[in-house]
Formats: sequence, C-alpha cells, structure tokens
Amino acid sequence: MNTERHIASAFDRDLEGIQALVVKMGGLVEAALADAATALETRDEAMAERVRAQDGAIDALEVQVNDECLRLIATRAPAATDLRVVLTVMKIAASLERCGDYAKNLAKRSLVLNQMHVVEGATASIRRMARQVGLLLKDALDSFIHRDVELAASVRQQDRDVDHMYTALFREFLTHMMEDPRNITACMHLHFIAKNIERVGDHATTIAEQVIFLATGQMPSEPRPKADSVNMGKD
Amino acid sequence: MNTERHIASAFDRDLEGIQALVVKMGGLVEAALADAATALETRDEAMAERVRAQDGAIDALEVQVNDECLRLIATRAPAATDLRVVLTVMKIAASLERCGDYAKNLAKRSLVLNQMHVVEGATASIRRMARQVGLLLKDALDSFIHRDVELAASVRQQDRDVDHMYTALFREFLTHMMEDPRNITACMHLHFIAKNIERVGDHATTIAEQVIFLATGQMPSEPRPKADSVNMGKD
Repeated sequence: MNTERHIASAFDRDLEGIQALVVKMGGLVEAALADAATALETRDEAMAERVRAQDGAIDALEVQVNDECLRLIATRAPAATDLRVVLTVMKIAASLERCGDYAKNLAKRSLVLNQMHVVEGATASIRRMARQVGLLLKDALDSFIHRDVELAASVRQQDRDVDHMYTALFREFLTHMMEDPRNITACMHLHFIAKNIERVGDHATTIAEQVIFLATGQMPSEPRPKADSVNMGKD
Repeated sequence: MNTERHIASAFDRDLEGIQALVVKMGGLVEAALADAATALETRDEAMAERVRAQDGAIDALEVQVNDECLRLIATRAPAATDLRVVLTVMKIAASLERCGDYAKNLAKRSLVLNQMHVVEGATASIRRMARQVGLLLKDALDSFIHRDVELAASVRQQDRDVDHMYTALFREFLTHMMEDPRNITACMHLHFIAKNIERVGDHATTIAEQVIFLATGQMPSEPRPKADSVNMGKD
C-alpha cells in the first residue's frame, strides 16, 4: 500500500464521517419541517414548542460539520477536486441550518396563528407543500451522497411544482384578505410561511446544482426551470 | 529572509487581493440597494432595470472570490487560524451575493408596484430603511477589513434600529390594507421588500459576529440584541 493510496483513503474515510453528519442534519430538518406543518394544522402547541427547542441541535451539527471540515483540510491537505467537495459539504450544511431556521419560524408563527381568525383550508395546503418540500430536500441530499446527477436534475424539475404550489397559495391568500379584512393579519403570517417553505425548495435546488457542478465541473447549462413571476411574490 | 516568513507574507498578500474583491462586492451591493430603493420611490424604471442587469457582476465576483480562496488554500496551505479567515471571506462573499439578490428583487418589485395603487408614504420609509441598512453593511465590512471588534459590536446594536423600522412598517402596511382593500396587493409586495431589507441587516450582523469570532475565538457571548417578535413577522 503506497502512501498516496493511504492518504486518499484516510481522506475518504474522514469525508464519509462528515457526510454522515450532514445526512443526520437533513433528517432533523425534514422532521422539523413536517412536525411544524402538522403542529400548524392540528394547533398542537406542544409539538410547535418541541420544534423550536430542537433547532439548537441542527445549529450544533452545522458547527460540528464546519469544524471537522477545517480539520480535514488541515490534516489531509486535499487536492483541488477533493477540496471542492469539502467546501460543498460546508455549503450544504449552511443551507440545512437555514432550512432549520425556516421550520423553527413556522413553529413560532403557528403559535401566533392559533390566536387568530381561522383561514379556511390554508393550513392543510401548507402541510401538503411542506411534505413535498421535505421529499425534495431528501432527494437533493441523496443525490449528493450518491453523486447521482440524474436525481439532482429531477430535483430541479420538481422544484417547479413547489413554485406552482406557492403561487397558488399566494393567490388564495390575496382572495381571503380581500373578502374579509379579519383575515389580513393571519394571511400575512401564512404567506410568510408559504414563502419560507418555497425557499427550502430553493435550497434543495441549490444543493442539486452543486451536485451537478461537482460531477460535471460546470453549473447546469440550461437555466433552472423556475416558475418565476415577481407578480406572485417570487424572490 | 527565511522560508516561513516568505510563505506568511505571500499568504497575506494573496488574502489582501481577495479582500479587495470583497470590498468591491460590498460597494456594488450598497449601490444596488440604494439605487433600487430610489427607483422604487421615484418610479424610475430605467434605474430599476439597471439594478437588475448589474446583479450578474456581483454574482461573478462571488465566483471569483471562491476560486481565489480555493487557490489560496491549495497553494499556501494556511494554518488553522488563517484557514478560518479564508473561510470567513467565503461566507462574507456568500452573504453579499444574497444581499445583491435582495436588491435585484426590490428592483423587480418596484416595476410591479408602478402598475398598482400608490400606498401613501411607504416608499419614502423604505428608502430610509435601505439607506440605514446600506450603512450597516458598510460598517460590517469595514469591521472585517480592519478587524475592528468595537465597530463589529456597534453593528449588532445598530441592527436593532433596523428591526424597529421593519416592525413599524409592518404595522403601517397592516393598517393600509385594513383601511382599503385596494392596498392589499401593493402592501404584500412592500412588506416583502421591507422584510428583505431587514434580512440585509441580519447578514450585516452575521458578518459582524464572524469578525468578533475571528478576533476572540468565540461567538459574542450575550445573545444578539434582537427586537424579536414573531407577531410582527420577524424570522
């Protein structure tokens, strides 16, 4: 066994350990998102509080991922390609941390919404959208772990469905607000929730694009299939 | 001149070059934000279009910063502390890229708002908030370049003012919507604009916290003085 080979496998072993942390983060974020959306629909305050309390675990994992990536770079001095993988891992961890914040924010807003006028049907739509985005995030992480470019490409496609769900909700909220001013404050919160869930989909897409970049050396050539329309409140 | 000394100054020289790019990015983001807010207030569509068109230059600078940071790590093999500085530079570039997106989004929404019912006084308030946040971002970058912990601490304090401005605007928009349903769609867009400007303030604060971390080795001990209230739509 020559030294180079030895160094390479030590790097791979370390990287696998870090990737396991990222997968763990992903699982926590998916659960937080699903639980927060369920808490909103069922008005389950205890569940919402648990989501809020558990966000610290996601944040702590991001710190751990960053620290272990730095140690990996310092001890293994990876070559350019491996270095890029390590930096992608850090970017993915940063995305997941942000998605965890969105789930926490959803949980916080659900507590506020419990005090307000009920907007018919809205929370069920939001739960469906959250489930869809959770699956998207899972696919994005799987595509990274298995370096599966095809799966990554499908994430970009699926994100379009999420954008459509968001746009439909935006229209629905506008209608509710115009019909009855008592809906206005609640709809502002619901709209933010929908927007933040849509942003989780954007993060999943960014992860998928990084997978494609790692595999092919360039960003996806055709522009992301984005159901874009600022009129509907898209960023 | 011994080798170690030589390597250290080569690292510093390379880092300075990269930091100059970050400062350039910061200047472009500040200008984009100020111009987009002015375009909104003065209904200047040509100016809004320029802001949209120039976002590509900000994105390109982020790619350049990332590439040069990777090359720096590969060629100089920086020690742990220097490595952390390089990674902070990359995080700051990522923040600035995101802030550029917010400015571009503001410009896009200003074009949409030009087609709508005018909401009295709102755009002037937003321009003031954008100016305040632009100064905050400048202070945050200055604190990084000069490793000025005191200035970084003041950024965290000033961000509280921005949060208050956002909360006041949120209340104002609710009132406008309840008074006249014709204001609802415009206020949804204005609210998003205000929220995104507030997020630029959060990015400035994150940069300031990284400066404090670099200087002291730990994140600011007391929690960020955040005028938090989910009731007002805070994330």
